[in-house]
Amino acid sequence: MANLSTCPPLTRASVVDAHELIKPHVHLTPVQTSSYIDALASTPQDPSALRAEHKNRRPAKPVLRLHFKCENFQRVGAFKARGAFHAIERLKLEPGWLENGGKEKGVATHSSGNHAQALALAAKENGIPAHIVMPSITIPSKVAATKGYGANVIFSTLTDRVAVAQRVVAETGARLVPPYDHPDIILGQGTMGLELQQQVARLDAVMAPCSGGGMLSGIALSCEGTGIRVFGAEPEFQGADDAKRGMEKGERITYVDSMSIADGLRSYLGVHPWSILYERKLVQGMYAVSEEEIKAAMKLILERMKLVVEPSAAVPLAVVLFDEDFRAMVEREAGEAGWDLGLVLSGGNVAADGLAKLFAS
Amino acid sequence: MANLSTCPPLTRASVVDAHELIKPHVHLTPVQTSSYIDALASTPQDPSALRAEHKNRRPAKPVLRLHFKCENFQRVGAFKARGAFHAIERLKLEPGWLENGGKEKGVATHSSGNHAQALALAAKENGIPAHIVMPSITIPSKVAATKGYGANVIFSTLTDRVAVAQRVVAETGARLVPPYDHPDIILGQGTMGLELQQQVARLDAVMAPCSGGGMLSGIALSCEGTGIRVFGAEPEFQGADDAKRGMEKGERITYVDSMSIADGLRSYLGVHPWSILYERKLVQGMYAVSEEEIKAAMKLILERMKLVVEPSAAVPLAVVLFDEDFRAMVEREAGEAGWDLGLVLSGGNVAADGLAKLFAS
Repeated sequence: MANLSTCPPLTRASVVDAHELIKPHVHLTPVQTSSYIDALASTPQDPSALRAEHKNRRPAKPVLRLHFKCENFQRVGAFKARGAFHAIERLKLEPGWLENGGKEKGVATHSSGNHAQALALAAKENGIPAHIVMPSITIPSKVAATKGYGANVIFSTLTDRVAVAQRVVAETGARLVPPYDHPDIILGQGTMGLELQQQVARLDAVMAPCSGGGMLSGIALSCEGTGIRVFGAEPEFQGADDAKRGMEKGERITYVDSMSIADGLRSYLGVHPWSILYERKLVQGMYAVSEEEIKAAMKLILERMKLVVEPSAAVPLAVVLFDEDFRAMVEREAGEAGWDLGLVLSGGNVAADGLAKLFAS
Repeated sequence: MANLSTCPPLTRASVVDAHELIKPHVHLTPVQTSSYIDALASTPQDPSALRAEHKNRRPAKPVLRLHFKCENFQRVGAFKARGAFHAIERLKLEPGWLENGGKEKGVATHSSGNHAQALALAAKENGIPAHIVMPSITIPSKVAATKGYGANVIFSTLTDRVAVAQRVVAETGARLVPPYDHPDIILGQGTMGLELQQQVARLDAVMAPCSGGGMLSGIALSCEGTGIRVFGAEPEFQGADDAKRGMEKGERITYVDSMSIADGLRSYLGVHPWSILYERKLVQGMYAVSEEEIKAAMKLILERMKLVVEPSAAVPLAVVLFDEDFRAMVEREAGEAGWDLGLVLSGGNVAADGLAKLFAS
């Protein structure tokens, strides 16, 4: 990871620079639409389906045109490729890194998810060794995929992975590349926001899933000064909606232990994302949905859009379809003209047997 | 359906005309690629995985660059929209059809699959009633989808659906639009072949699934005179490879009773497709694969390409990956330069619980 002291400022212009750096290495992912899902989103919810606290309301009637940014088609199957490639491009620009043998010492991280594969791929394409610490309970297909990109996988227990990663860094001299709480990662993930702005004429708003907040804060930077509103979506199960709760309290929450099916969204918001989203007020709202709502949204994406997405990627659509607070706000703010709303399909890394477990009847 | 006497000749030029007619009504579906699957396809099979009859061979080493035509993104989720819209456009051009109240009498068919929804949609957009005969055991989601497009659904038993359809035609004066064995349907489905030729530079060959043969023979017409080779792919389970077996014997097979998981490929080759594919020699080869091979190919498409496809759509990829006869032929004919091969992902209409059943471990 580039030293914090040499990082570019957290601004839209820096996201534009990041895009120039990573463009040759990542896919310009397509934007897809579904008139069927637009019609559903623009139809008032069945009153009997409203949550208890909303039972006495008239169901909202927002007008929505949805634009799905297909990061499930991104390299390694998730948006994480953007941040990982950007982190390595930035390292290559860091004064002294190359001269001091940085390329030979390599990079390191701890991750059992998409960041592991993304860093492994970005390192491989640059001829740099990658040391990835994974809990020994990680499912074999993810370990195999990470090894498939040539990474050196080191196993840890669930609780000592940070310590193991620090030991690996001490032993190898590799540079640690954290999964989200770093400016280079945030600027890299934000590049998808720029693409959405180019791909959708008159974009009114964007909603993205939020876990550690690297992607959401990057997108928020990409929208700063454009007038485009930014919203975050979280699972509410077992407190995974830490960003929403923290913003309501005015204090960042630093502990989450959730087993939400949205397994990419179980972390808590990082320091830099908190600063961007909350202190700089670059997010206009956070919303949280239930496990059943996430599954229902995922089913629609599979069956109607013919897209394989992981549960985390379906969380924004779940908000759009089922969260009456969000829907009433859109009706109020967008009026009859409605909104063109970008939704980030953040990744598609779910195995066929994982799909089978989710949808077994 | 337009009268046979007024149908255009079965030529490439007629496919071009069909494309002009339906372009405003169907999607120009994208073509996607996967470097991972290309590498798999271009790697010799593990000798231990070869079928018994190929055990003593050196595994073939074809060089393949695959181009997947995403008809799962087509309207109603399958290529059938092309033929249905073409059939109705042709009816509208038929002398006397409009004047004799054709539009009020409507269209009819018997289908429990994608053709039912396709005809229902095409009729609805033209303000024409559609009478669709479906076996009463059809799964409720397919009945609901067909009714959702405004069709009049009439239930039959499995064995009397043709008789019921004839009765409906007699009672209503509706025109019967068969699912595949008609020139207008064949020319409509063939339009995807033209698109592939425009979307892929230097296409060497195309492979499509084959059931009644409407799509395969349409694609074959679209390739006539271009030098592009055409191949068909079938399931072998319980004799669903009737086209392959029939061509080997030199006689069209007119009975199939297969419960292959590739549920779109359980019909037998129609008269017009037989004439185009066999008598006019416009197909260069037919190949058949096992149920397990189809499932393995479908799993790759889901997990690696992030695309939802129905089992029938995975049959061509199964041939490419597992059929040693096909692979040896490509090695021999394409040599080190290899082939750019178009594969038709014919549809994506599989419910989430259907996926769950297929991949339950």
